[in-house]
Amino acid sequence: MSDYKIFAMGDVVLQSGATIRDAKLAYKTFGTLNAAKDNVIVYPTWYSGQHYDNEWLVGTGMALDPDKYFIIIPNMFGNGLSSSPSNTPEPYNQSRFPGVTSFDNVNFQHRLVTEVFGIEKIALVTGWSMGAQQTFQWGASYPDMVERILPFCGSAKTSVHNFVFLESVKAALTADAAWNNGWYEKPPTKGLRAMARVYAGWGFSQAFYREKLYLQHGYSSLEDFLVAFWEGFFLARDANNLLAMLWTWQQGDISNNPMYGGDFEKALGAIKAKAIIMPGQTDLYFPPEDNEYEASKMPNAEFRPIPSIWGHFAGGPGMNKVDVKFIDDALKELLAR
Amino acid sequence: MSDYKIFAMGDVVLQSGATIRDAKLAYKTFGTLNAAKDNVIVYPTWYSGQHYDNEWLVGTGMALDPDKYFIIIPNMFGNGLSSSPSNTPEPYNQSRFPGVTSFDNVNFQHRLVTEVFGIEKIALVTGWSMGAQQTFQWGASYPDMVERILPFCGSAKTSVHNFVFLESVKAALTADAAWNNGWYEKPPTKGLRAMARVYAGWGFSQAFYREKLYLQHGYSSLEDFLVAFWEGFFLARDANNLLAMLWTWQQGDISNNPMYGGDFEKALGAIKAKAIIMPGQTDLYFPPEDNEYEASKMPNAEFRPIPSIWGHFAGGPGMNKVDVKFIDDALKELLAR
Repeated sequence: MSDYKIFAMGDVVLQSGATIRDAKLAYKTFGTLNAAKDNVIVYPTWYSGQHYDNEWLVGTGMALDPDKYFIIIPNMFGNGLSSSPSNTPEPYNQSRFPGVTSFDNVNFQHRLVTEVFGIEKIALVTGWSMGAQQTFQWGASYPDMVERILPFCGSAKTSVHNFVFLESVKAALTADAAWNNGWYEKPPTKGLRAMARVYAGWGFSQAFYREKLYLQHGYSSLEDFLVAFWEGFFLARDANNLLAMLWTWQQGDISNNPMYGGDFEKALGAIKAKAIIMPGQTDLYFPPEDNEYEASKMPNAEFRPIPSIWGHFAGGPGMNKVDVKFIDDALKELLAR
Repeated sequence: MSDYKIFAMGDVVLQSGATIRDAKLAYKTFGTLNAAKDNVIVYPTWYSGQHYDNEWLVGTGMALDPDKYFIIIPNMFGNGLSSSPSNTPEPYNQSRFPGVTSFDNVNFQHRLVTEVFGIEKIALVTGWSMGAQQTFQWGASYPDMVERILPFCGSAKTSVHNFVFLESVKAALTADAAWNNGWYEKPPTKGLRAMARVYAGWGFSQAFYREKLYLQHGYSSLEDFLVAFWEGFFLARDANNLLAMLWTWQQGDISNNPMYGGDFEKALGAIKAKAIIMPGQTDLYFPPEDNEYEASKMPNAEFRPIPSIWGHFAGGPGMNKVDVKFIDDALKELLAR
């Protein structure tokens, strides 16, 4: 009894040139599509997250209210539910799974929205982190279809520093001989734990650790936070899936496609949607400066950082109620425009 | 023909309770000790650095001028020249090398200064990064002896976030099976390279990478910077030495000793030296906020960040001439007080 549906896409050709045969896009919807089909919100997933990891921002009385909106959460390719290294049959299984870009992901999501539901306008696209990257991509890929975007804690183009951070995550995971270039039978747990510890310093800010906020959220010590939160988080994931999504992230660039030919400013300028661009004020790998630049090149964008010491986790997944309210309030404001 | 000397210390007992037998403190001096013995500068080394890595801040016309001062660069234990995992005979070799704290290191340096040279006053202690940690420790351990300190890009106490960063470095290095719990015969190169990539994101700021400053300093691409600068840097080091110094760093706390019994504010308050505390404005693991707090608890300290986008490397090792001048000017100013 799964709580989600599968859109069977047939064979899909990727930007990289590979074809995923019998591709699957897993998604979950909330609420009801109205007759005018004008109450649609698309809410893509983040790095390693699955649709249920997005649900903290959905609820009656919230901006993403299923009583008013038809909310679609599409699972990113590589996340273990949509086509991924872990669920694709030979010969494109495990480390042979091809690179999927955000441009690809959004094209697939566009097929879902139009072919399955016959939707022509989207009231809002929003998402955290890599979900924000897909949100920007939606705005650039379908500027006449997307009316509003609110990407939070993510960028339209992966910065050089962010790329280096991802190199470090990858290096830690793949230093484990058990990874075996992706052809493992048992999970490379040492590498997953190492990756988790690398991620730990980046995910939350220096101030979060200085104030020991982990002690207020169910963790009994720093080491308990590193083991129970961070190592537990990544041990539950498949290594090849993590590497596939990491590749997607590293390639992040809304202009790296035939529409814009690598002209990043042109792609930003083409986003017609009303936008609030919302970084975490203390995010260490999606720092506000990158978003500030992006917002300045978009015709209808407001730049509004989340005033939080939760670093990247100011944006999710719903751990800090103050930040959730800040994001939810902005979503309500944008939807009312 | 080595360019340094060895102070044979005999058997030294550490805070941890272990004894290093026939301990060695490697050091190099510049200039001449004057008759009054009042022209002494002590300049400890940083994580993995050796005395020659400090020499960029020493020279005629600079603050650390060998024509005026007698400059002593003591090598930190664990750095491969002073007693270290790599040069200590069985049974305390390799991963059995005991933990050495900054308190221990400074006590050894104090023995060098007093027993070998008969020095009673030190005009200045200065150092970068872990050298700054030893600088703070000098101020707290010998408050009546040290007249001035200028720690740059380092803290008096390793912060929780900094500790996590070091966990990540350690996890990446030790994920390599070739490390073999420290009992390797060939270097664990995969782990050293992984560690290097983890360090890469932390060593320089987001803005440094955004502006691609590595292209102006001898590197032809981002990947060339990661391989030639970062991987090359750590491949030249011994893994157990790196882990020994990492332990020293993680324990950093000038008050964790019988003098202060863990009372950090008391230790800061006891530092009589005239001080300029100089973080890098964009340092990601020694952020200015920690130094600002420390300076506020010291009776004679000024807080003066280095206005640089070079992150931790604003402080060394001499790569950016603008930052070098900023530090050198402050050293001159402090020495004139």
